[in-house]
Amino acid sequence: MPENRLLTLLTDFGLSDVYVGVMKGVIAQINPHLKVVDITHAIPPQNIAAARFCLMNAFPYFPEGTVHVAVVDPGVGSRRRAIAVETTAGFLVGPDNGLFSGVLSQYPALAVVELTNPQFWRSPTPSSTFHGRDIFAPVAAHLASGVPLQNLGEALAKDSLVQLPIDPCIQTETGAKGYIQYIDYFGNCVTNIPGAVVLGKVWSAVVAGLTLPSYNTYSDSHPGTALALVGSHGWVEIAVSNGNARSQLGLNLGARVEIKFN
Amino acid sequence: MPENRLLTLLTDFGLSDVYVGVMKGVIAQINPHLKVVDITHAIPPQNIAAARFCLMNAFPYFPEGTVHVAVVDPGVGSRRRAIAVETTAGFLVGPDNGLFSGVLSQYPALAVVELTNPQFWRSPTPSSTFHGRDIFAPVAAHLASGVPLQNLGEALAKDSLVQLPIDPCIQTETGAKGYIQYIDYFGNCVTNIPGAVVLGKVWSAVVAGLTLPSYNTYSDSHPGTALALVGSHGWVEIAVSNGNARSQLGLNLGARVEIKFN
Amino acid sequence: MPENRLLTLLTDFGLSDVYVGVMKGVIAQINPHLKVVDITHAIPPQNIAAARFCLMNAFPYFPEGTVHVAVVDPGVGSRRRAIAVETTAGFLVGPDNGLFSGVLSQYPALAVVELTNPQFWRSPTPSSTFHGRDIFAPVAAHLASGVPLQNLGEALAKDSLVQLPIDPCIQTETGAKGYIQYIDYFGNCVTNIPGAVVLGKVWSAVVAGLTLPSYNTYSDSHPGTALALVGSHGWVEIAVSNGNARSQLGLNLGARVEIKFN
Repeated sequence: MPENRLLTLLTDFGLSDVYVGVMKGVIAQINPHLKVVDITHAIPPQNIAAARFCLMNAFPYFPEGTVHVAVVDPGVGSRRRAIAVETTAGFLVGPDNGLFSGVLSQYPALAVVELTNPQFWRSPTPSSTFHGRDIFAPVAAHLASGVPLQNLGEALAKDSLVQLPIDPCIQTETGAKGYIQYIDYFGNCVTNIPGAVVLGKVWSAVVAGLTLPSYNTYSDSHPGTALALVGSHGWVEIAVSNGNARSQLGLNLGARVEIKFN
Repeated sequence: MPENRLLTLLTDFGLSDVYVGVMKGVIAQINPHLKVVDITHAIPPQNIAAARFCLMNAFPYFPEGTVHVAVVDPGVGSRRRAIAVETTAGFLVGPDNGLFSGVLSQYPALAVVELTNPQFWRSPTPSSTFHGRDIFAPVAAHLASGVPLQNLGEALAKDSLVQLPIDPCIQTETGAKGYIQYIDYFGNCVTNIPGAVVLGKVWSAVVAGLTLPSYNTYSDSHPGTALALVGSHGWVEIAVSNGNARSQLGLNLGARVEIKFN
Repeated sequence: MPENRLLTLLTDFGLSDVYVGVMKGVIAQINPHLKVVDITHAIPPQNIAAARFCLMNAFPYFPEGTVHVAVVDPGVGSRRRAIAVETTAGFLVGPDNGLFSGVLSQYPALAVVELTNPQFWRSPTPSSTFHGRDIFAPVAAHLASGVPLQNLGEALAKDSLVQLPIDPCIQTETGAKGYIQYIDYFGNCVTNIPGAVVLGKVWSAVVAGLTLPSYNTYSDSHPGTALALVGSHGWVEIAVSNGNARSQLGLNLGARVEIKFN
């Protein structure tokens, strides 16, 4: 018998209701020895792009073979497909709506199935509003317990999945142009400009009419000062040392950011 | 030695303070091998009715024999009793203030004890303000580790527990009248009208002066449109497809909802 | 092989982003059998004093030998030291910025090391912005798996740690003067006056121009009434029975509180 795999959960369910707890109960009903780690449940409701960004950034930090369940699912109960994907570094289980695009851009799919085998659902008649409980959690619990991917349903072509690509930034010889794709809890504003673009350069960032110097870390700047840096996730980020860049600079998702090499 | 039972926690403690973590520490001090699942800690402060609704909806999704600790306890330190209940599907541990009424309406009590045996408390002199830490968590840890219910204190008559029944909806030949008993994180408004009332009917819902069509799932309706459906918890629910019914329709707890069969 | 130690996490990272989940992934990569308990992730951003208060209050409720990781780290990437501390009751891992002062005032340090051995980091080149992921979580996972403290880096003098002492209250023969050092989720206002000061006394509290009677527990007073009591954490606390003292009395951190013996 293979060792159990780790499970993770990422949803937009929040923690106010019982939905996340119920998914964990369903998993424990199938295999009480499984370990479950919450990635986050605070994806803005039905924001597939934010879920894609968060899952992509968390994915590399989990053990090989981990089963990642992600449920941001505005199309639940419609004809959108329920899928499981095997990658070189772990498994993905959730709706086929593009939220796995980020992970799959970095860890190619080895195999994809549509979750059509009701033997691994909670019951053959799932609700039409909570597939997290009725399909995704039980399928993932079976997968983490050693059920082979191909048993879960019919194989799909790897290139048939819904895509939600991250807009590439525009690179020139003198810099790059992009936008803010995610704002974190501290108010740090993460752009779609990869850190590799500024690697080895002397650079500054222009945002909201301000030109901000770049540093290695928040505390290299005076408290309250705006700066640019490459964040721990590997993207160029606008921040305020000991402060909140979103509120201090009045930034929102989609705001333009320009990198200038000095 | 019996296998350990799963533990769950449901409280109104929030996650800002250390209270929930401390309960888990106390449990680990008694038996470091116990597994604990959070149902939710965001019950509105001291709202026993919301706790009753949430616990009732989560309870069926956990393994048989699970020990559910629920602490929404405005009467802590007063003469309200501390109890443990054995049902056909699991155990309940918490204050005797009605918060178990929902579960017990569906899973009858097999045995009830008052938690009078200080041998299973954290110490013989509990605080008067935090029985979650000093009585409920340690008693539940012992129960989950195999201590028999009857060892925890004196037996109580099953019909002696404090009741907090859910108001039944009013059913007629042409429909039903009820009210909103719970609003979730997405703004979905859950009524006290069981889904069984509308089973096999063609029906609509009248709320806030609007007549809403019924669907099977959120995405059967256009984004932004209000609708009625039977939610995953089994109650009639007022929702907005890809939106928030509470804010869009201006609904509050207690708002009247009428079902009309077409 | 020694049994694994329990790990806890306390941060100001919030639960909106993936940061906490990523730390747990890193821990599972090192040892998938480790158990992790969240103390809280809602410390106000970069508020070392609140973290010190919360960790001190939670610490005694965990098993001996538990490894506590605490990351409230405005100086990340600067020259502040990263440390691990062995106390008589458990281990501490985090930045040397005073957040362990509370625990160490009650559980003296037996040994201290600076985390200079990159063998136990996630990689020899940590980011300059997320030492929780790159240094503290992996070091703590190794420590919880049985690596001896002294292997983690160079020994430091116990008295060389950054201190952030709690201001003592002023005691007189007729009472005591202090201030509000922490406000919890319920709006209970915790002072810096230890419960021992009022032990065995008849006493009242003066705050915001009001004289409040003292009780043993919230429910000894009428709902909506302000009162003083010794909270479950052992400090004098200002509360409102079934209500919120912060909003009802307009209290803030630092507000003066005077105890009068009757």
